[in-house]
Amino acid sequence: MAKLYVIKIGGNIIDDDAKLASFLKDFASLEEKKILVHGGGKLATRLAEKLGIKQQLVDGRRITDAETLKIVTMVYAGYVNKNIVAALQANHCNAIGLCGADGDAILAHKRQHPVLDYGFVGDVDVINAELINSLLEKNITVVFAPITHDQQGQLLNTNADTIAQEIAKGMSDLYDVELIFSFEKSGVLLDTDDDTTVIPEINLSYYLQLKSKSKIFAGMIPKLDNAFTALKSGVGKVIIGKAENLKELINGSSGTTITNE
Amino acid sequence: MAKLYVIKIGGNIIDDDAKLASFLKDFASLEEKKILVHGGGKLATRLAEKLGIKQQLVDGRRITDAETLKIVTMVYAGYVNKNIVAALQANHCNAIGLCGADGDAILAHKRQHPVLDYGFVGDVDVINAELINSLLEKNITVVFAPITHDQQGQLLNTNADTIAQEIAKGMSDLYDVELIFSFEKSGVLLDTDDDTTVIPEINLSYYLQLKSKSKIFAGMIPKLDNAFTALKSGVGKVIIGKAENLKELINGSSGTTITNE
Repeated sequence: MAKLYVIKIGGNIIDDDAKLASFLKDFASLEEKKILVHGGGKLATRLAEKLGIKQQLVDGRRITDAETLKIVTMVYAGYVNKNIVAALQANHCNAIGLCGADGDAILAHKRQHPVLDYGFVGDVDVINAELINSLLEKNITVVFAPITHDQQGQLLNTNADTIAQEIAKGMSDLYDVELIFSFEKSGVLLDTDDDTTVIPEINLSYYLQLKSKSKIFAGMIPKLDNAFTALKSGVGKVIIGKAENLKELINGSSGTTITNE
Repeated sequence: MAKLYVIKIGGNIIDDDAKLASFLKDFASLEEKKILVHGGGKLATRLAEKLGIKQQLVDGRRITDAETLKIVTMVYAGYVNKNIVAALQANHCNAIGLCGADGDAILAHKRQHPVLDYGFVGDVDVINAELINSLLEKNITVVFAPITHDQQGQLLNTNADTIAQEIAKGMSDLYDVELIFSFEKSGVLLDTDDDTTVIPEINLSYYLQLKSKSKIFAGMIPKLDNAFTALKSGVGKVIIGKAENLKELINGSSGTTITNE
């Protein structure tokens, strides 16, 4: 099977024009088929502040009211997505920017929670692998903004990590998928304050061992749980590290590789 | 050749939720292949006002500085485009929302003007008929936001009428194209203050005759000039009228039809 990279970038890259330009140059130069999933960084928060719209966070998650949904749709699917696509075109990488409503690419439903109303937040039901593959087969790189829809006309704000994972899983019947989560650290660290203590490889038994010794810090647990879920669903490899080191993440000389073995 | 409708809608529809919903229902029910081109209505102006960004208009054209480009990219390619796509999906019309950078769909260059700097405003060079056709062939309706790119990483604000016309021209080798420009009037009027004086059909000699008698008002002249240019370039028919009357525009019982004969 042909290789497919599904790469998620976060705020630390998106908020820094020089870093983003450098990352997109590296990304564009990858010869294999590829999909980019981006968040919105702090741009949405900043725009909301300027407009006097209060952002409510519960357990680190943004509550998406109607006004906030407008903002994230503008910032993620408009500003960030289209500027990334234009930059990729300038790097001779033919890209197309989509949200989940486009071509019915990502179907989701409004999150149901017994106590809390997250607002217009979507949990992913299914991705449209056929549409995505038809674009990849035309050598078009797909760039996803983290906005989905419910087929009833409602857009939904959706976690970009989750979208990357669902796309990786959904494409794994057709491709040998490598899923790369980039974040502000160089990988999974043994000592969270020391960026040189990257664990190069983690399998499930080692993960459980680290977790039992409380060596894995809080924010890392959902990322790793997601990684193992993806591996169980057919994704070939999950890599966690810094977007600045994209080439090294891919050749194995940087970041943490999560494996099934 | 199969029929293709290229339909441009403007601010009077986009700014009115109920009218827009009703139009999109009619649009979705068209069985033929179709492309929708939208502007941004007054939403961009309103957002700029809220953010304290002054809008400079020269001869009715917005000067697009860097801050204004951000706003129109957010509003046109983000908010308006994705909400239209989600509404079409709810009406069982599989749609994909693009700007000109996506898939290199519309290549443009920054407008050169001997005296005036319009800022980040694009004049269209060429549309990517092959990409657009590949989507239409998958029964995907394409929805264009009026933002283009220059292949050097620069997004450009571009007149939506022009985009509709260029797409209609560019697709006319492959389809029997009907181009529909919708605006706030019922058609080309003999008496601009009387919406019941629609001229049902105008050909070039009648147009020149009307123009010589100053029966065609100022704003109508570029629209009609564009229509005749499109007809000369292979577009089968151009119709001008109200988006609310979409079905009647198509069956010929409303609006003005511009023909070559």
